[in-house]
Amino acid sequence: MARWEPDARERFVAAALELFTDQGYDDTTVAQIAERAGLTRSTFFRHFSDKREVLAAGQETLSRLFAEGIAGAPADASPLTAVAAGLDNAAGAMTPFNRALAPRIEAVIATNSELQERAAQKQVGMAQAMSDALRARGVDDRVASTAAELGLLAFKEAFSEWIAEGADGPEGADGSTSSSSGDSDLETLLREALERLRSAVAQLG
Amino acid sequence: MARWEPDARERFVAAALELFTDQGYDDTTVAQIAERAGLTRSTFFRHFSDKREVLAAGQETLSRLFAEGIAGAPADASPLTAVAAGLDNAAGAMTPFNRALAPRIEAVIATNSELQERAAQKQVGMAQAMSDALRARGVDDRVASTAAELGLLAFKEAFSEWIAEGADGPEGADGSTSSSSGDSDLETLLREALERLRSAVAQLG
Repeated sequence: MARWEPDARERFVAAALELFTDQGYDDTTVAQIAERAGLTRSTFFRHFSDKREVLAAGQETLSRLFAEGIAGAPADASPLTAVAAGLDNAAGAMTPFNRALAPRIEAVIATNSELQERAAQKQVGMAQAMSDALRARGVDDRVASTAAELGLLAFKEAFSEWIAEGADGPEGADGSTSSSSGDSDLETLLREALERLRSAVAQLG
Repeated sequence: MARWEPDARERFVAAALELFTDQGYDDTTVAQIAERAGLTRSTFFRHFSDKREVLAAGQETLSRLFAEGIAGAPADASPLTAVAAGLDNAAGAMTPFNRALAPRIEAVIATNSELQERAAQKQVGMAQAMSDALRARGVDDRVASTAAELGLLAFKEAFSEWIAEGADGPEGADGSTSSSSGDSDLETLLREALERLRSAVAQLG
């Protein structure tokens, strides 16, 4: 089996997370990240505008994947079915690399209030991206906003479950694939989370 | 009729907003804010930890008011009815001063990405405060999160309508009260927004 080779972008993310964890986010420079990754500063800046982007870039990718999935849902799909297509599209792009690094990204963000604020804005942006994509399908404003918020809640819940299972399982940061029993795939967790939220909606009163 | 006298806190907010608008957020110092308000720097720091807090303090107050209103709802109130009680409680505390200054606060926040990120985190915090207050009433996690997100959507929508009507109407930053026809009170706008979202939920599919 071929060894899994991370690309430059992933090497920067892995190196940055090691340094953020070991010596703190504030004390880590782009030059150090590049050195740790075995790449140059100018290569870093071809991938990220600054060191904050190393942590936030994934959320921007998610916004795009959600929107594309929603846009690609069948024309007669209900708003929540379109949201499910957006979640599926994002889930399909998540790799063992994402899964292994997500808890470490969250741990670094938790150490710094500026990073927490930025992460919150990205969350608002993800809901907005889903809502915009729904409106582009002709969905009413309020239905779109509501479906988008449910989609974001489902994603956060399922993604947390997925990374928690990943942390417990045999799968490591080396990106080895896993097929251990009891280890759910993200698509399944997302569908389940969205169904639970659909039931919750019926209990709002 | 007695002249409306803003307290120290409101004088700082009004002075800060004038300066942020005239010369930019970054170029405004706490010393300048204090001077414009006719108060001292040490008085400023009794009210706010830094100049960012001038813009964010209202959102923290809202979180508290939402939570208190939810906690005070009748024991048999449904989750959405409890959320409505939280929204009512916040609406009851909003003054003509809040209404007059809100658009200017938003305009300043729109000029600065750091402020936008902070505002997003406060939004996440408001939903969290409502969700926590609902869980404290024994509401299931997911029902609580969903009701909280709907409450936040309703608040944002109704508050925008309210400040837009305030900007069009005869009511000014001097805090004069208004009872012009066609000018809705915030409580009514909130109830209507929540009802529209309840209908939207039925269309999620």
